[in-house]
Amino acid sequence: MARFLKKQSKKSGLPPGTLIHIGDKKTEKTTIDYIDYNTDDVQEKTVDRIEDCYPLKQSKSVSWINITGLEDVSVLEKMGSHFDIHPLVLEDILHTDQRPKYEDYESYFFVILKMLRYDDESKEITSEQVSLILTDTCVISFQELEGDVFNAIRDRIRMGKGRIRKMGTDYLLYALIDAIVDHYFIILEKIGEKIEGLEDEVVDNPTPKILQYIHGLKRDMIFLRKSIWPLREAINNLYKNEHHLIKKTTGIFLRDVYDHTIQIIDTVETYRDMVSGLLDIYMSSVSNKMNEVMKVLTIFAAIFIPLTFIAGVYGMNFQYMPELAIPWAYPLVWIVMCAVGIILLLYFRHKKWM
Amino acid sequence: MARFLKKQSKKSGLPPGTLIHIGDKKTEKTTIDYIDYNTDDVQEKTVDRIEDCYPLKQSKSVSWINITGLEDVSVLEKMGSHFDIHPLVLEDILHTDQRPKYEDYESYFFVILKMLRYDDESKEITSEQVSLILTDTCVISFQELEGDVFNAIRDRIRMGKGRIRKMGTDYLLYALIDAIVDHYFIILEKIGEKIEGLEDEVVDNPTPKILQYIHGLKRDMIFLRKSIWPLREAINNLYKNEHHLIKKTTGIFLRDVYDHTIQIIDTVETYRDMVSGLLDIYMSSVSNKMNEVMKVLTIFAAIFIPLTFIAGVYGMNFQYMPELAIPWAYPLVWIVMCAVGIILLLYFRHKKWM
Amino acid sequence: MARFLKKQSKKSGLPPGTLIHIGDKKTEKTTIDYIDYNTDDVQEKTVDRIEDCYPLKQSKSVSWINITGLEDVSVLEKMGSHFDIHPLVLEDILHTDQRPKYEDYESYFFVILKMLRYDDESKEITSEQVSLILTDTCVISFQELEGDVFNAIRDRIRMGKGRIRKMGTDYLLYALIDAIVDHYFIILEKIGEKIEGLEDEVVDNPTPKILQYIHGLKRDMIFLRKSIWPLREAINNLYKNEHHLIKKTTGIFLRDVYDHTIQIIDTVETYRDMVSGLLDIYMSSVSNKMNEVMKVLTIFAAIFIPLTFIAGVYGMNFQYMPELAIPWAYPLVWIVMCAVGIILLLYFRHKKWM
Amino acid sequence: MARFLKKQSKKSGLPPGTLIHIGDKKTEKTTIDYIDYNTDDVQEKTVDRIEDCYPLKQSKSVSWINITGLEDVSVLEKMGSHFDIHPLVLEDILHTDQRPKYEDYESYFFVILKMLRYDDESKEITSEQVSLILTDTCVISFQELEGDVFNAIRDRIRMGKGRIRKMGTDYLLYALIDAIVDHYFIILEKIGEKIEGLEDEVVDNPTPKILQYIHGLKRDMIFLRKSIWPLREAINNLYKNEHHLIKKTTGIFLRDVYDHTIQIIDTVETYRDMVSGLLDIYMSSVSNKMNEVMKVLTIFAAIFIPLTFIAGVYGMNFQYMPELAIPWAYPLVWIVMCAVGIILLLYFRHKKWM
Amino acid sequence: MARFLKKQSKKSGLPPGTLIHIGDKKTEKTTIDYIDYNTDDVQEKTVDRIEDCYPLKQSKSVSWINITGLEDVSVLEKMGSHFDIHPLVLEDILHTDQRPKYEDYESYFFVILKMLRYDDESKEITSEQVSLILTDTCVISFQELEGDVFNAIRDRIRMGKGRIRKMGTDYLLYALIDAIVDHYFIILEKIGEKIEGLEDEVVDNPTPKILQYIHGLKRDMIFLRKSIWPLREAINNLYKNEHHLIKKTTGIFLRDVYDHTIQIIDTVETYRDMVSGLLDIYMSSVSNKMNEVMKVLTIFAAIFIPLTFIAGVYGMNFQYMPELAIPWAYPLVWIVMCAVGIILLLYFRHKKWM
Repeated sequence: MARFLKKQSKKSGLPPGTLIHIGDKKTEKTTIDYIDYNTDDVQEKTVDRIEDCYPLKQSKSVSWINITGLEDVSVLEKMGSHFDIHPLVLEDILHTDQRPKYEDYESYFFVILKMLRYDDESKEITSEQVSLILTDTCVISFQELEGDVFNAIRDRIRMGKGRIRKMGTDYLLYALIDAIVDHYFIILEKIGEKIEGLEDEVVDNPTPKILQYIHGLKRDMIFLRKSIWPLREAINNLYKNEHHLIKKTTGIFLRDVYDHTIQIIDTVETYRDMVSGLLDIYMSSVSNKMNEVMKVLTIFAAIFIPLTFIAGVYGMNFQYMPELAIPWAYPLVWIVMCAVGIILLLYFRHKKWM
Repeated sequence: MARFLKKQSKKSGLPPGTLIHIGDKKTEKTTIDYIDYNTDDVQEKTVDRIEDCYPLKQSKSVSWINITGLEDVSVLEKMGSHFDIHPLVLEDILHTDQRPKYEDYESYFFVILKMLRYDDESKEITSEQVSLILTDTCVISFQELEGDVFNAIRDRIRMGKGRIRKMGTDYLLYALIDAIVDHYFIILEKIGEKIEGLEDEVVDNPTPKILQYIHGLKRDMIFLRKSIWPLREAINNLYKNEHHLIKKTTGIFLRDVYDHTIQIIDTVETYRDMVSGLLDIYMSSVSNKMNEVMKVLTIFAAIFIPLTFIAGVYGMNFQYMPELAIPWAYPLVWIVMCAVGIILLLYFRHKKWM
Repeated sequence: MARFLKKQSKKSGLPPGTLIHIGDKKTEKTTIDYIDYNTDDVQEKTVDRIEDCYPLKQSKSVSWINITGLEDVSVLEKMGSHFDIHPLVLEDILHTDQRPKYEDYESYFFVILKMLRYDDESKEITSEQVSLILTDTCVISFQELEGDVFNAIRDRIRMGKGRIRKMGTDYLLYALIDAIVDHYFIILEKIGEKIEGLEDEVVDNPTPKILQYIHGLKRDMIFLRKSIWPLREAINNLYKNEHHLIKKTTGIFLRDVYDHTIQIIDTVETYRDMVSGLLDIYMSSVSNKMNEVMKVLTIFAAIFIPLTFIAGVYGMNFQYMPELAIPWAYPLVWIVMCAVGIILLLYFRHKKWM
Repeated sequence: MARFLKKQSKKSGLPPGTLIHIGDKKTEKTTIDYIDYNTDDVQEKTVDRIEDCYPLKQSKSVSWINITGLEDVSVLEKMGSHFDIHPLVLEDILHTDQRPKYEDYESYFFVILKMLRYDDESKEITSEQVSLILTDTCVISFQELEGDVFNAIRDRIRMGKGRIRKMGTDYLLYALIDAIVDHYFIILEKIGEKIEGLEDEVVDNPTPKILQYIHGLKRDMIFLRKSIWPLREAINNLYKNEHHLIKKTTGIFLRDVYDHTIQIIDTVETYRDMVSGLLDIYMSSVSNKMNEVMKVLTIFAAIFIPLTFIAGVYGMNFQYMPELAIPWAYPLVWIVMCAVGIILLLYFRHKKWM
Repeated sequence: MARFLKKQSKKSGLPPGTLIHIGDKKTEKTTIDYIDYNTDDVQEKTVDRIEDCYPLKQSKSVSWINITGLEDVSVLEKMGSHFDIHPLVLEDILHTDQRPKYEDYESYFFVILKMLRYDDESKEITSEQVSLILTDTCVISFQELEGDVFNAIRDRIRMGKGRIRKMGTDYLLYALIDAIVDHYFIILEKIGEKIEGLEDEVVDNPTPKILQYIHGLKRDMIFLRKSIWPLREAINNLYKNEHHLIKKTTGIFLRDVYDHTIQIIDTVETYRDMVSGLLDIYMSSVSNKMNEVMKVLTIFAAIFIPLTFIAGVYGMNFQYMPELAIPWAYPLVWIVMCAVGIILLLYFRHKKWM
């Protein structure tokens, strides 16, 4: 539940643009590092103070400033005033329950994404807000926690692999978004495996626990859809709008990410249909179990109640019951009882109840 | 129910623009107060007669006139004629079952919102209509009841906190809308807690009372959606339309409120999905309980009916029943009966019915 | 059923524009009356022949010609040719199963509405088609039946209440539409009361009759939605399209009616959700009743079947049953049987089946 | 089933525009007849060879060429090359599983419709594809089978009834479409009658056969919707697009047909809702029947099992059972048993199970 | 499951445009062949190296280069650099889990489709990605596997059947798309047959296995819809956008394919409705079976439990039971028991339980 709604109420009544971190306190320390590169050169550094990043604003080369940990609000304030960032942007960075979105502030773009991770231990999907600011010389990224999905990009920059070193900040923005979106496929695979695992379980053992598990899956998918659906829209706006910050060559790559988001949405929809199918099968299995129970009851009752009746008849104490005196009456009664039992058994077999 | 449809019929047949208060009579007295401020100065006053507010129309400073209680129709009439407000606007202010909306009357804007409050005692969500009129020098607000969510704004104006004192009436309008929308998050948290509380209850104890409670939640959310959905549209129109009454700098803040409304709608949709899930689990729990009852019945019946039959057989009074005379027959019958019972028990355990 | 589809087949094969009254024959007589008014003067008259209304076409004052009863097709024919009305319009007036719509024929507008009435005796909603033609000097209205919701308008014209006498035919058209739409709220209240009344009934007494009643309500709402949904569209077109027949001042009033239609649609949707909820609760109540029946059966069977077995054992006639001779055996068996019964009772109470 | 998908596979692999008749072979013979008329004159003829219709292409009068039976592909080929019809149009005429559509080929229009008929014997709706080609001098219609719904139009042309003789080919096209659409109302009435007939049946006798019948109805409506929905779109395009082939006066008539299609769609939607309601009632009736069965079982079991237990107790053979010797014990046991029975009966009556 | 999501994770972290084949390894060898034709001449060849196709880029005639097998990435790389294909296009060709789409790269078009095949043995639908590149002189097609649905096209080119030899590359592209889409109808027929086969099975024998089979069908249709829905959009864009690569005469043919995709979507929707109907009938059949079981149980229990009670009464050992001594008491008890049994039987028959 907690992941669906963070404590917005903390903010209630404060003037807009007030910088308060809303979200679970995830990390104590704020770490700042940057990579500054061009076709020929790469410089990588972890700095203590945001002020050390100020020169990057003017440098011709492409700079990627990465800020991890949002507890120290003063870092954001300083960064915001040096880079001329609107207070509402800073507020959105700190309120980590934003929907993915893209906002155009003319001199810079602001993008919010959800970085999803699958925790192998708790088997839960966790979400972390990543905020990206794109200017013509810098990409500034904000993360809540240590650890991200960007290491491959860092390697590509360091090694000069692919075209990343030859391109501008817009391509770097694309690369970061692409890394996050690509990671969604891994989440999808995990969910896919879970669904597959359920298909037999649901027929054999339809317990309410399974049902809660299925609904947990459903909620995972609602969560995923909530992360990806507005992202699709945001990326669409990003590549469709003509803007000096996004070059046309990068636009084609953004269209590719856009295609990936559609593919993810498609898969989520397919999974939703499958999970609905699982629910149907679950319900039907429950009915079927009940049916089976009823059949067992009916077979036992329908066979033995008539027999007990016959036995009861000859347990009566009337003085004039001529049958009682006949020597072959007792075996005959046994034969009759066996016959009745067998006929009923055959009848139930004929009805395919056994 | 009552909150879904107020007695419109009262109005039936009257000429349009007739001022009659439609809605529950919530307060006797109409109180009028205003805050008049600019960057340097704040003046706050509670006045007896609406006439005392007339000068505010021309004053250069920003004025916020707040009218609480809609019973005294004459206040509205006078206010309307002095400020040149269209009769239909006045009618809408009095009919407190309006959908949230925004209307552009060129020289002024008219906005209707629903201020929601969660009553901690009755655990019910109550709704109050807030109507706002924006002119270039005044914001006039109308409330049905004493008490509102605007105290933080009043404090900010008094103290000069944030940017509110430096901005115009459009920013004040934004601040009021923002306060109301921010309050929705608190309602959402309450509903979220209720849903969370239900999840276990529904598996353990699926009574029709729980079901009615779930449907109560569903209705709360329909109500919430009815309040927020048209509001989203209204705010969208407010910030998208270019108009001399809304400055561009304020537009950015309105876009932020707009984002909040989307976030609320998103959460409501998520909650709806969760409540649907609860209903599924409820239905399944009922089936499961029934299944359990059936199994108990079947186990008892299937074990004891055959045993009773055996006992019945040797209760028959035939004269020639050789077994009856055998000394070890009685213990043997006991052994047979125990064996039958144990075999059936093992069979049911094997079927996982026990 | 009948109200959903009138006998269109009657018309099949006839050339379009052929004037045949389709719909239930509701009245024998066709009555024609008119009100002709301007700011200073009102003239009201019931005439025998449509020809008496001809002069109103040229008169400067506003005229409202009201024709009740559609059986006498010749009246329509004459009226049509004098006022230059398109044959398809006349056909639509006679075929009383039209959807509400608005059509622009340049020199006149044609509007079809459904006037709903709640019959207090049969507790049914009845529908009557009202067709309105707006020219620059006249509004011509067609009704199927005597009796309408327009008396308040007639009074306002006679008394000169409100602004109606100062405005043109477009305002009269608005007033007529407004009267019909306002009346919908009364229907909604009736349905709301019915739904409220059902909520307890459905838990206590879930009979198929209740279910049919709920579905009756559902059908009422389908019917209502069918009447109001296209009307919303029609009114939207009416006030959005710039046209010399609709003055701008009247446009604002039409927007107000438009808001009412949205409000009605909103309420209908809310009611639909509530009725769906009722169906869920109904289904669940049925399951619950069944569960209760099963529990009673199981408790009786599970307690007495084992006891009967014990009694059966000591009803056997074996010669060597040492217990039978023990004097305290009989009371002991009673004690055992009571103990078994009590233990089972406690078990079922523990399971909350009792 | 067969009507939902004709054997497209027959065509697979052939070049597009290859003329092969796809659809059930419905008739052996291809008959060609035409009516050629203007305001003054009508000429009607059945011809053997399509070549006899060639002169009609140039004649100033309005010609309606009607071709029934699609087996003889050569007729189409000749017609196509003389009238300059695109091969894909000819292909569409022959593949009788097309969706209704309208295509604009500049010098001619091509319209496909479904002519529905209700077979009173088999109580099934059958469908026949009618293709219409509109040029400035001719309407060419193609039917699969003898017999159609156009006889009234033929009569109107022959007699000069209505305005048809005074209008052009566009009006003739309209008349043909109108005849087909009007016939849909008859189908709707038949379905409406069937639904009405089911309403009681479903409560009294909820057998799987009824369910299959309801689903048959549902399928009929899917079928109807599949025929009418694209038709609505086609007609909309036909009258909205300005084109020299459709005169403005005819446009108004087409708008009227368009209204009819919306009305049909509306009714189909209403019926769908009603049939969904029937399914709900069906399901509930099944549950109810089960409930009733359970109650009977429970009443019998709960009354007689305790009584049998009492009888069983006094059937025990203990030597020391003092009650057995008491003379009034036997009648007392009867009294006790009757009392138990009556108390339980009253209890069940109190629970409203009887 | 596997067909819904291929291992995208393989790609995670690689720079975009990296050529890695994602998808099941379906074939070892990459084979390249081409057909080069104009009105007069056809040349067909299987080549070993992609370099042999380089001259086709400049040749005036129409060339169709077909590459089967995507394992050998170097072929794509060379082809890509010679024909100036964007790296993302090459990536999409290799990632065989793309949605069908159409992309316009000015000098060439890129189209992705899904070629579906029904495997008669496994009764499963298999999917293969076909990528098409259209330049002004070439169509380059990429397939995953040997064997396709294009043989009829090859024959038409070889024989000069139809108009294909007289048209350009755009018509060839159309022909390939048309062949794939036409093949969908065969898949639909197979699914249609399966659905038809289920209709009786579901009433007679509602096992969970049937349910899983129905859900398998549902998933097939989700799969089909996922393939065809974006294709419809792609083809729509292809023929609507004016572009020098698509001639107007070919546009008409593309519109025809577009119509086919709509027809397929229509049929899929119809099938979905039918399968939903099957699920309803399934659920109802399960309930019905249960009902039947309950009736048998109830009839047996309700008849024999009272009779057993009567027998039990006269098995009591009271000393003073005057009836026991009456000679005709025993036969009378039989008569009474028979009468009770017959009355109950008649009662149950009256209730239509038998």
